[in-house]
Amino acid sequence: MNQRLCVAVVGAGYWGPNLARNFRSSPDWELSTICDLDSERAQRVADAVGGVPVTTSLDDVLADPTVDAIAVATPARTHHAVVMSALRAGKHVMVEKPLADQRGRGVDMVREAERRGLTLMADHTYCYTPAVLKIRELVQEGFLGDILFVDSVRINLGLIQPDVDVFWDLAPHDLSILDFVLPNGLDAATVAAHGADPLRTGKSCVGYLSLPLAGGAMAHIHVNWLSPTKIRQMVIGGTRRTLVWDDLNPQQRVSVYDRGVDLALQSKGSADSTASNISYRLGDTWAPALPETEALAGVVSEFAISIRDSRPARTSGESGLRVLSVLEAASASLRCSGAPSPIASTEAIEPILAGAEA
Amino acid sequence: MNQRLCVAVVGAGYWGPNLARNFRSSPDWELSTICDLDSERAQRVADAVGGVPVTTSLDDVLADPTVDAIAVATPARTHHAVVMSALRAGKHVMVEKPLADQRGRGVDMVREAERRGLTLMADHTYCYTPAVLKIRELVQEGFLGDILFVDSVRINLGLIQPDVDVFWDLAPHDLSILDFVLPNGLDAATVAAHGADPLRTGKSCVGYLSLPLAGGAMAHIHVNWLSPTKIRQMVIGGTRRTLVWDDLNPQQRVSVYDRGVDLALQSKGSADSTASNISYRLGDTWAPALPETEALAGVVSEFAISIRDSRPARTSGESGLRVLSVLEAASASLRCSGAPSPIASTEAIEPILAGAEA
Amino acid sequence: MNQRLCVAVVGAGYWGPNLARNFRSSPDWELSTICDLDSERAQRVADAVGGVPVTTSLDDVLADPTVDAIAVATPARTHHAVVMSALRAGKHVMVEKPLADQRGRGVDMVREAERRGLTLMADHTYCYTPAVLKIRELVQEGFLGDILFVDSVRINLGLIQPDVDVFWDLAPHDLSILDFVLPNGLDAATVAAHGADPLRTGKSCVGYLSLPLAGGAMAHIHVNWLSPTKIRQMVIGGTRRTLVWDDLNPQQRVSVYDRGVDLALQSKGSADSTASNISYRLGDTWAPALPETEALAGVVSEFAISIRDSRPARTSGESGLRVLSVLEAASASLRCSGAPSPIASTEAIEPILAGAEA
Amino acid sequence: MNQRLCVAVVGAGYWGPNLARNFRSSPDWELSTICDLDSERAQRVADAVGGVPVTTSLDDVLADPTVDAIAVATPARTHHAVVMSALRAGKHVMVEKPLADQRGRGVDMVREAERRGLTLMADHTYCYTPAVLKIRELVQEGFLGDILFVDSVRINLGLIQPDVDVFWDLAPHDLSILDFVLPNGLDAATVAAHGADPLRTGKSCVGYLSLPLAGGAMAHIHVNWLSPTKIRQMVIGGTRRTLVWDDLNPQQRVSVYDRGVDLALQSKGSADSTASNISYRLGDTWAPALPETEALAGVVSEFAISIRDSRPARTSGESGLRVLSVLEAASASLRCSGAPSPIASTEAIEPILAGAEA
Repeated sequence: MNQRLCVAVVGAGYWGPNLARNFRSSPDWELSTICDLDSERAQRVADAVGGVPVTTSLDDVLADPTVDAIAVATPARTHHAVVMSALRAGKHVMVEKPLADQRGRGVDMVREAERRGLTLMADHTYCYTPAVLKIRELVQEGFLGDILFVDSVRINLGLIQPDVDVFWDLAPHDLSILDFVLPNGLDAATVAAHGADPLRTGKSCVGYLSLPLAGGAMAHIHVNWLSPTKIRQMVIGGTRRTLVWDDLNPQQRVSVYDRGVDLALQSKGSADSTASNISYRLGDTWAPALPETEALAGVVSEFAISIRDSRPARTSGESGLRVLSVLEAASASLRCSGAPSPIASTEAIEPILAGAEA
Repeated sequence: MNQRLCVAVVGAGYWGPNLARNFRSSPDWELSTICDLDSERAQRVADAVGGVPVTTSLDDVLADPTVDAIAVATPARTHHAVVMSALRAGKHVMVEKPLADQRGRGVDMVREAERRGLTLMADHTYCYTPAVLKIRELVQEGFLGDILFVDSVRINLGLIQPDVDVFWDLAPHDLSILDFVLPNGLDAATVAAHGADPLRTGKSCVGYLSLPLAGGAMAHIHVNWLSPTKIRQMVIGGTRRTLVWDDLNPQQRVSVYDRGVDLALQSKGSADSTASNISYRLGDTWAPALPETEALAGVVSEFAISIRDSRPARTSGESGLRVLSVLEAASASLRCSGAPSPIASTEAIEPILAGAEA
Repeated sequence: MNQRLCVAVVGAGYWGPNLARNFRSSPDWELSTICDLDSERAQRVADAVGGVPVTTSLDDVLADPTVDAIAVATPARTHHAVVMSALRAGKHVMVEKPLADQRGRGVDMVREAERRGLTLMADHTYCYTPAVLKIRELVQEGFLGDILFVDSVRINLGLIQPDVDVFWDLAPHDLSILDFVLPNGLDAATVAAHGADPLRTGKSCVGYLSLPLAGGAMAHIHVNWLSPTKIRQMVIGGTRRTLVWDDLNPQQRVSVYDRGVDLALQSKGSADSTASNISYRLGDTWAPALPETEALAGVVSEFAISIRDSRPARTSGESGLRVLSVLEAASASLRCSGAPSPIASTEAIEPILAGAEA
Repeated sequence: MNQRLCVAVVGAGYWGPNLARNFRSSPDWELSTICDLDSERAQRVADAVGGVPVTTSLDDVLADPTVDAIAVATPARTHHAVVMSALRAGKHVMVEKPLADQRGRGVDMVREAERRGLTLMADHTYCYTPAVLKIRELVQEGFLGDILFVDSVRINLGLIQPDVDVFWDLAPHDLSILDFVLPNGLDAATVAAHGADPLRTGKSCVGYLSLPLAGGAMAHIHVNWLSPTKIRQMVIGGTRRTLVWDDLNPQQRVSVYDRGVDLALQSKGSADSTASNISYRLGDTWAPALPETEALAGVVSEFAISIRDSRPARTSGESGLRVLSVLEAASASLRCSGAPSPIASTEAIEPILAGAEA
């Protein structure tokens, strides 16, 4: 068995306790420290996992040579500073979503990790749920055929965040899932965002994203803080089958429908109308059994493997960056009343990096 | 009791039999004729209601002085010609949705009816369902407070229509309902439409409409022919309460949630952050009992009353025109990759009409 | 193609119109007459199917040599008299459930039909729905394994019948389905019935039936007129798989769960506790596609085939009798405060019949 | 503020950790010790709450004068011995359901507690859920009117217990809830039990209980370890309204339907048939908002109040005894093939107690 890696959790707010608990119970990790500016909050998290040292000093954590890695669960606007310091101190880093509060800062972070050969991992927790792992498998083995559309709804009576709008708060979930399951990842050239702020909070509380995908397909995301009913549903339509993921139905989270529309190829010179070449399949429904495992256990395991094997995490810094690219383009689209806005390619960062190294 | 009005049904396809059956069983109407170019089809509809005369000649129907009105259930591209002839022959007219296949043609029809003092009614059937009538009542009496957002989803494995896209096929339902229930009707200045045609049928099969409403609110419509699961759901969020209409849940179609987000007005000079002025209501849910009546019976009754009282029908030609205005703007937006497109005001038609009469 | 058989519908109340419509549209049948004591009611049914002769005289119907068969939809207490007359007149007969209002009368009817070589068919409509046909197929081919339990719930805010209790009104549906789908039919030796009449209507409005089946299995039926929510659900547990039929979920009426409890056979002399030999399967769920066909069309077709081929109908008079046997035993159990009551075997009727013929 | 009471948790298996956690976070309690024969198991529970002393000796716990009370979460067959020792040592006692494995032993325990003036509380946790507290309030204030029927379903793919059947494992939940919410508690004179053991495990895995209540009403309970789908639903029908509790629907656990059947009182000498005096209400549905609180926090709070105020707990030893009385009668009914079996009255224990004290 490998020696355990040593990790510190930075940030003891909403997500930190979950990280601490999962690192604590992981065979891959030694949980060394809880770090938070609020020492009482840090202590509560430490107590809840049976006691570990706490500190209010990030510098002390980074100066500790026994610490291999840090997991960052601080507010998004602090990610850049915390992560850059950690990378410079030679630590591997896992960051809560979103990777950063601006795309440019995310680029910095990804470049810095690459330059130093350190793991930078995005904590896209949903990607490690049994449902999403199964969806990825089905999509990527072609069980659904070519993807025709993806429609994702994530609505709830939600906390109105002080610093981010509903897009930056909720859509990272949907975007990271799309990036994870689609054969070509989040491969959209533009995004159109429509938002509403009917309560005059100063930011969108209701939002819609339209992302045209390659081949005429479309992804669409609906996020909403004002809905009295909670819906977390994603439909992925394919040429062969269509999948519905209803995350709030524990008895049947993932259903695959062998139903759909078939369009026969028209032979040249055919006098047939288009309509006559359409047929409908009304086949069976199948719901795969899914294990009941905690996603975050998979996250911390992947973080360890990525470090040990010196390979990018399955939800790498780049994937976090692709999410940021869409969010930033969405914000630009919002400022233009919903006109489609180009999404910066993450391909572009490599030559620049090469140039910087030259 | 009033004397019965006499009506002919023109078009014996999908919708005609329903019209025939409801006119036949209405105390307000005498069903005189079924008219269709296909005489066998007309005969089948006539037989199903216990026998009425059939004809293949619209001219004969319009020349019959005992016929007061016609109900048109022919394809949308024929509405203009049929309706204009009928109005010129002095007949009142009810037209299946959409009112016409082009906004300009709808304007013609509305003007012609006004000029002649005849009723032109849009058969927006959903507006006469017990659910929508109750929603209208609740919205208009202020039970929901100010409207913050409307999100409507109408998806299904649907017939791909030979001549219209998914917007023109399905969105008239949602748009006519919005026009009917909102205090100011379909009062949007622009619409953005995003469509996908991943099967290469030549028209959108998946579509999204975003309509910014007055006061920062937003209406959004999702229509889709490719979904294996059927969803017909509308959420109307208000400052006081939020309503969810789930048309496929006969046991609880309409639910009103006394849940929401309250935003206290900030006093000037207040140092409080915005967040501190937000509170959440998590109150009871209430589902009004709804009668089980057939909407189309209400449609034919309203048609009779509108004629007798010489007043516009509750779903008037103008309402049909407002729906057309949005659909035409949506088509323009589609051609511009989803950039918001202005919606022609229906106010504009009156001065022109006045000018025409001068 | 065969010549059409000629049928008269006797009884124009709740169910008669459905029979008339299905006979009318069947290629196997000529609908000759609607017979009801109330001539206006008969006329309305006749009109609704495009016009057929009506009569108030059953004698006239039975005297008509062109009439091959009658379908009886009169109140249960009249079934015996109507059916016996029809059989004596040489007509084939189909009877709405329950076959009769007393088991002894049902025995008479079955004997008379056998003696005369005529078809006597029970109109157990549910047995011809796509869902029940599929369930029968799955059970009988062993897809579920051995049957462990059946739990059926049929509750609703229902009409309190003037002449029958909730058992006689609703349980015939469940019992006829059990008789149809189980490998050995309704093969129970006793039944215990528990009923409640909390509104003092003079008959049970809430009822439960427990039927021990062979091999330690159990069937249980819950019928209820007082429930504000409507549930029509049957669970059939087997050693290999378990099936859930939710008749009010049109999107997934039948689900087959590859989940269950496995009990390994204990080898003799094993020191293992029972618990250690139990394991759980948590496999996939599968929902077969079902066609959307009207059950009653299958009923009238089966009636014709049974007559033409001189073979018992799949829902024969005997199956109707097995249902009556349980109902009568249930009434006896009710009178004894729920003590289990023996169910008369329908095997017994044949020797008696033989004796009667001797 | 009151001084904290001191409690030891006895039994560190399935339920013990929950008790430990709730006592630990309660302002009323000091958690002094975890006691279990398996010291490692005890230690794990102690660690999970941040560290408390552990012991394998119940005698040591009972000999400790600082311990005011114990909470027992050991197997049911050990309850009598543990609780009697504790009471004799002068400790207040809370016991996991069922109170004991035999009614007679439960009587002993209740008498001993009364004799010594100590609190004996049944940990009927469901009675402290927000849903059940609301149901009790609605029933007892007459909002539902007189109770007509109660139908409770608790089915699941469940662990087959080594020592108890499905009635003793699951029905205590339903029975304790009935005892808690009904105006007269579990006031049934007889119970009929029907069980099935189709897997030959040696005990019932599927079970039904019928309990005739006063005034013609009926309670019925369905418990099942073999169902692939999980259902936890209770319907309580009343003369004024009917309530449905669906515990697996977090968005609407409790619904109150203003629907039902009304039966007008017949005037004497009336010639009207019964049917003509029946009418139906189809009114609104209402779902009260429920707080999200943990039931067990309410349990430990009630235990403290009961001790301090020297009053019986709301789920007293007597209520645990009433549950045992039904279970024991159900076992007797099972042995008699489901014939109704009399339920021992708990009233009877007082005179005997008086006699014992004399």
